[in-house]
Amino acid sequence: MKRLTLYLREVERRLSQGESRVSSRQLGQGLGVTDTQIRKDLSWFGQFGQAGVGYAIEDLATRLRQILGKDRTWKTALVGAGRLGQAIMSYGPFAREGFEIAAVFDADPSLIGTEVGGRRIRRLDELDQIVREREIMLGIISVPKEAAQSTAERLIEAGVLGILNFAPVRLEVADRASVVSVDFSARLEQLAFQVSLGLKGSIDGDD
Amino acid sequence: MKRLTLYLREVERRLSQGESRVSSRQLGQGLGVTDTQIRKDLSWFGQFGQAGVGYAIEDLATRLRQILGKDRTWKTALVGAGRLGQAIMSYGPFAREGFEIAAVFDADPSLIGTEVGGRRIRRLDELDQIVREREIMLGIISVPKEAAQSTAERLIEAGVLGILNFAPVRLEVADRASVVSVDFSARLEQLAFQVSLGLKGSIDGDD
Repeated sequence: MKRLTLYLREVERRLSQGESRVSSRQLGQGLGVTDTQIRKDLSWFGQFGQAGVGYAIEDLATRLRQILGKDRTWKTALVGAGRLGQAIMSYGPFAREGFEIAAVFDADPSLIGTEVGGRRIRRLDELDQIVREREIMLGIISVPKEAAQSTAERLIEAGVLGILNFAPVRLEVADRASVVSVDFSARLEQLAFQVSLGLKGSIDGDD
Repeated sequence: MKRLTLYLREVERRLSQGESRVSSRQLGQGLGVTDTQIRKDLSWFGQFGQAGVGYAIEDLATRLRQILGKDRTWKTALVGAGRLGQAIMSYGPFAREGFEIAAVFDADPSLIGTEVGGRRIRRLDELDQIVREREIMLGIISVPKEAAQSTAERLIEAGVLGILNFAPVRLEVADRASVVSVDFSARLEQLAFQVSLGLKGSIDGDD
């Protein structure tokens, strides 16, 4: 996925310069990737590009955006409007990257109906209806760990296809949805490991 | 690192059952790892274990805990006591995993001197002294992205060896410290990618 993101960035740069075709060799130059690797990566997603002619840049950009899910705005439901949920709501880059927090839910009666960051907190029992009506595809779980699994079930029942899970617990979803977890402890353990080994430098833990 | 964590868990299980020696073959059984892989992984960290005799379990456990940084409590300074910082402070698993938030700092005068989760919020200009006095080794950055780089500089100057960075910006630390970033956007992009491809199941984005 990291390489595909790199390819898209390079393809968009070339597109903005008015180029119309690019070979895998040209694409690889400057990215530090061999043309063989590029052809292999792209062939995973079907046939595009022709030997000797290269890729039509505009088609390639469109296809890469589709593959990476960057061809749309992803409507997202946030469940759990406590401190972490509020921090997530105010996280700037989401909107820029094509994500919209379309609804926010919480179980705490004292929060329901209040506005946080311009968003009204809704009752959990409205979740199903709102997720369906607004065609929300993704869920973000920032509830206490005891409530995480039942929240996941609820989101999946309502039609959500993917869950970003901040609760420190492994969600069991079988093949009903896709889950990515953000585990603060695991990151801190990774850091302690690196410091123990004397490793230096900026390592993107999330790559 | 993931495999080393698995090895440690298995070694500790055997230790608790009173076992004193284990071969790489025995260790690999049930973990789904070949004995060759285990010997290779462990050889990275120097010579331990003898061909035909296996590993002394207690030594192996001690060594794995050292390598993984699990042989001590890591004192940590948290900088940025806003919503995200408060969520991090109240994140349960840190203490269990050997991390102690030993001091909390913020630049906001209205927060300084107040207590959040039983911890007093301190002025940024106390950071240097407190990090040195308490021998704090790690920093957690949960400040706005504009302040992240200067916060990192300050922590490193004070003697911190590793930084867990929650700000959506890449820190430039060269070889002065180890940095692990928690990038919420990158996780959400990963999720969108998986959903676009129709991938299902729980994938630990952080592994």
